[in-house]
Amino acid sequence: MPGQPAPHHPQSARPVAGGVIPPVCTPLTPDRELDLASLERLCGFLLDAGVAGLFVGGSTGETAYLTDDRRARVLSAVVGLVAGQVPVVAGTIDLTTERVLGHARTAARLGADALVATAPFYAPTHPAEIAVHFRSVREAVDLPLLAYDIPSAVHTKLPTGLVAELAADGVLAGLKDSSGDVDGFRAACGATALVPGFVAFTGSETHADLALLAGGAGIVPGLGNVDPHGYVRLYDAARRGDWAAATAEQERLRALFGMIDAGDPARMGRYSAAIGAFKAALVHRGVIASGTTSRPMIGLNDTENAAVLGHLERAGLC
Amino acid sequence: MPGQPAPHHPQSARPVAGGVIPPVCTPLTPDRELDLASLERLCGFLLDAGVAGLFVGGSTGETAYLTDDRRARVLSAVVGLVAGQVPVVAGTIDLTTERVLGHARTAARLGADALVATAPFYAPTHPAEIAVHFRSVREAVDLPLLAYDIPSAVHTKLPTGLVAELAADGVLAGLKDSSGDVDGFRAACGATALVPGFVAFTGSETHADLALLAGGAGIVPGLGNVDPHGYVRLYDAARRGDWAAATAEQERLRALFGMIDAGDPARMGRYSAAIGAFKAALVHRGVIASGTTSRPMIGLNDTENAAVLGHLERAGLC
Amino acid sequence: MPGQPAPHHPQSARPVAGGVIPPVCTPLTPDRELDLASLERLCGFLLDAGVAGLFVGGSTGETAYLTDDRRARVLSAVVGLVAGQVPVVAGTIDLTTERVLGHARTAARLGADALVATAPFYAPTHPAEIAVHFRSVREAVDLPLLAYDIPSAVHTKLPTGLVAELAADGVLAGLKDSSGDVDGFRAACGATALVPGFVAFTGSETHADLALLAGGAGIVPGLGNVDPHGYVRLYDAARRGDWAAATAEQERLRALFGMIDAGDPARMGRYSAAIGAFKAALVHRGVIASGTTSRPMIGLNDTENAAVLGHLERAGLC
Amino acid sequence: MPGQPAPHHPQSARPVAGGVIPPVCTPLTPDRELDLASLERLCGFLLDAGVAGLFVGGSTGETAYLTDDRRARVLSAVVGLVAGQVPVVAGTIDLTTERVLGHARTAARLGADALVATAPFYAPTHPAEIAVHFRSVREAVDLPLLAYDIPSAVHTKLPTGLVAELAADGVLAGLKDSSGDVDGFRAACGATALVPGFVAFTGSETHADLALLAGGAGIVPGLGNVDPHGYVRLYDAARRGDWAAATAEQERLRALFGMIDAGDPARMGRYSAAIGAFKAALVHRGVIASGTTSRPMIGLNDTENAAVLGHLERAGLC
Repeated sequence: MPGQPAPHHPQSARPVAGGVIPPVCTPLTPDRELDLASLERLCGFLLDAGVAGLFVGGSTGETAYLTDDRRARVLSAVVGLVAGQVPVVAGTIDLTTERVLGHARTAARLGADALVATAPFYAPTHPAEIAVHFRSVREAVDLPLLAYDIPSAVHTKLPTGLVAELAADGVLAGLKDSSGDVDGFRAACGATALVPGFVAFTGSETHADLALLAGGAGIVPGLGNVDPHGYVRLYDAARRGDWAAATAEQERLRALFGMIDAGDPARMGRYSAAIGAFKAALVHRGVIASGTTSRPMIGLNDTENAAVLGHLERAGLC
Repeated sequence: MPGQPAPHHPQSARPVAGGVIPPVCTPLTPDRELDLASLERLCGFLLDAGVAGLFVGGSTGETAYLTDDRRARVLSAVVGLVAGQVPVVAGTIDLTTERVLGHARTAARLGADALVATAPFYAPTHPAEIAVHFRSVREAVDLPLLAYDIPSAVHTKLPTGLVAELAADGVLAGLKDSSGDVDGFRAACGATALVPGFVAFTGSETHADLALLAGGAGIVPGLGNVDPHGYVRLYDAARRGDWAAATAEQERLRALFGMIDAGDPARMGRYSAAIGAFKAALVHRGVIASGTTSRPMIGLNDTENAAVLGHLERAGLC
Repeated sequence: MPGQPAPHHPQSARPVAGGVIPPVCTPLTPDRELDLASLERLCGFLLDAGVAGLFVGGSTGETAYLTDDRRARVLSAVVGLVAGQVPVVAGTIDLTTERVLGHARTAARLGADALVATAPFYAPTHPAEIAVHFRSVREAVDLPLLAYDIPSAVHTKLPTGLVAELAADGVLAGLKDSSGDVDGFRAACGATALVPGFVAFTGSETHADLALLAGGAGIVPGLGNVDPHGYVRLYDAARRGDWAAATAEQERLRALFGMIDAGDPARMGRYSAAIGAFKAALVHRGVIASGTTSRPMIGLNDTENAAVLGHLERAGLC
Repeated sequence: MPGQPAPHHPQSARPVAGGVIPPVCTPLTPDRELDLASLERLCGFLLDAGVAGLFVGGSTGETAYLTDDRRARVLSAVVGLVAGQVPVVAGTIDLTTERVLGHARTAARLGADALVATAPFYAPTHPAEIAVHFRSVREAVDLPLLAYDIPSAVHTKLPTGLVAELAADGVLAGLKDSSGDVDGFRAACGATALVPGFVAFTGSETHADLALLAGGAGIVPGLGNVDPHGYVRLYDAARRGDWAAATAEQERLRALFGMIDAGDPARMGRYSAAIGAFKAALVHRGVIASGTTSRPMIGLNDTENAAVLGHLERAGLC
């Protein structure tokens, strides 16, 4: 967009480019306190695998389940642990603009390198209102802003035209697409291809290879907590154009992702099953201490835990 | 449920019985500050009309758009203004249990007489998780708890069996059903008919008469901010079995409710249009000072405001 | 609509006014042949109960499962059995206009008194296309045409404005609303109130009383096959303004309708369960010979059949 | 499935392997008669481009809009025109089993090489009922049977497990997936990978490259009527592992597919717009004589037709 001033990035903020940026799990103790020692081990595990950044405050981090105070403590801890090695991207999940702004200001103060915000939810929201929302956040807090497209949670699909408009205007620096709609993701990649520095991430665990072939810059996979090395291999293969290798790695990870079906759907929701499986796997791998999840989520039982272990074994991870 | 201890209600809490309990609008100044003078006039207007209680912190109150601090200020103001004349019911809209608990504790401290909570939202939630959620709130805060069934916002329909179970167990003291599903409401009324004191409210502006015929105890109509006298007349007619009068009043109110279509759907969402219309009507009626709504909602323009006025005139309200 | 010619009705067609018009089940032999003896007994049972008409070719009649030839045989048989005592309304369920026209022409030839057609389905359809569809059917076949609003099957909700426009233009003579949306039904009743002779039927088994209070002219209840006397009592009570009696009858019928949950949802669809229950009940009541349903529907087993019988016993029907 | 007899294919039926199999448009004259001369030119155009087969009776062929007689005439004509050069796959779109069987028997009689059937629609259908449906069709008509997964039309997503089970049992010989769900397609490819001869086709115009990378055997693109050469190039590039070329071709075809937005959504449905655009493009390319579509579809106007032409020009097609 000629004549448009380049968006200002704070001096200290590390730029978010492509690559694998896992949405970090939030380890809890069995009595549901924050387990900072496990969080430290998890961050180290992810950094050692070669991830390109960490996303704190995403859906996988149980952010919807955390009080404002706990959200801040997690972000502060991760910023400290990462110590500038990679950018830390902070989620600001909340219902509407003023509430998101509160999280965004806290994130900036705590040293996040970029923000992620969804469309408003609860009340049905018009694209014009979503535009006001993102513009308000971008104007109020001087950090690159990524749009989080997650219709399963916020029940709005971000229109491609809106993403493109906000990207061209310097409001959005990127997209995290957890919609599962690979055509829409591809359209967003195409519509933002000429915006310098714009990065489109897929949130898909299961078609990351396809999303990269379709033009994506990176991956934000919840399963990346469990097998960051696998996603880094997948990403590297795709970057060098070795689609056979990327696809083979993706197939292995697809099988591993089957762990989210370990939890019995007759007694828990899909989210309890998925987060429970990731945490159980991280316990099995010796990364975190407890698989405890937030209230009112239902925990995995022994049988379900064993099923998760079986997935790890078949994937060669323990 | 024989042998079950009666749920404890704090000495000071006024019981929530049937009748009309409007979800109170939150008046804002043109620069989006809280307008306490208008709030005072609005509460007086509603009390004068003979409402049976006030619901603060509902969807109509723009609660999803308010920071925690502002929510508390509104509730505190209303409790003070009402001064015990009728019960004040406090909404606790938030994503999940710990966050709802924060609002619930604040509401109890500020003197609310009862709480209203939705199912968790954002992540998909299993009925067993919803049960844990409501039980957790009820156990933590000693106020009667009403379940708020609003699938359009939280994307879960509360199962009738779950409502009945939680009612029988003394967890739920009532239901506020904004689902629009009159069969489901009727089923919930039937399934809780033997639970002493349980009250089922419909949130419908447009079939309140039918909901009362189907067994409802009361009405929580957003439009009740604009025409509380009409809803009180409707309720009173239904209570004395004069269904012809109740239906005639309902038909008049249905026409009045057409004001929510004044806002152009090409430029705003349904929620902006509805809340904008209610506030515009309250300005026209001289109750509040400004029709301003919260960010990122879109405001009505002059043409749309005039259309709202036309609805008031046709309904004989100005 | 002043100056508009009154819609022409063929001399021989009996007018469809209000009242109870059951959608007639299609009895099959155990080897899935048409059981005309049972059909004769069923029609007699319904006529004896005082129904105001019979609807052949509706969803309850398994019409979607019948070949064109079988549909015609059923309609022909019913027209003969009824012998002009009440109007026979013929469904024309099919994908799009030309196919519906085929059924409509057959129905006219076989002596039906009115037609029922849904919006086109399979491909997503615009209201302007739905309008062309209904206008095409009305122009081609000279019988009163009722619109069948059944979004659960055709995945389109008929817009109220469209129904009103087609009613005013003499294209539609009535509405059969199986949407479950009582507000929409009420709006349609209101929007057609000034069209002479227009009749709005609810297809709801469970809120027929409310639909009549909201302005409906009649009821087309699948459960009316099983208990036509109950629905006729409900309708008569409503017509004389005895809403307490109407509601009491409705509550009894709501409990009876619980029979549709007898079929195990783990092994059959909701439609198999509902039609299977109605037919099982008709066998228990001695009206038809076999509960067999069409391929690929799953039949009720002995346990499920016994559960249906329990519902009949509790409702005082055997 | 060891010990399972291989599914019998009639001697004369040409096997359906991978490749591009366009769903053939049905050309109509301006007065909506079948235009056999245009159909002949269209088939020639497609065969010359190197397609691997022709799919007659698909959604793109307006099959839902055709009477039984016209469906048969189209299929008969195409079988004659193709004269065994490639397999002709016949759609059997209809509501339920008996009706589908009628089309299947006709198709076999007319010389089709394989059948395509959807799940039953209209009534909600359980997987167990869908299984009975496909098994009934396969048993009754001795032609290879492909399942057509098109939730936008039939409102059921075929479960992967069901597809796998029916493939292993020799009931299904293939899948045509128009769900848009690339993860589901990939899962189906994986779950049937060991079934000899099973072919999984994507119906996507816009992510055919991704579907082939994910394991697909071929493409059934509606847009393949307009640019069969492009899809053949895309397929060939993918087969030789040249994903850069496949993706470049796909990007060109994605832009071309923008033609389906030429029709104004304020005055027509998406289906009218899509089929109207394909036919308009075929007229512009000199393949068929008229862009007329079936009743009650809305036709493109001059402006919209010009927009289609613009898409062809930008894609280098005229």
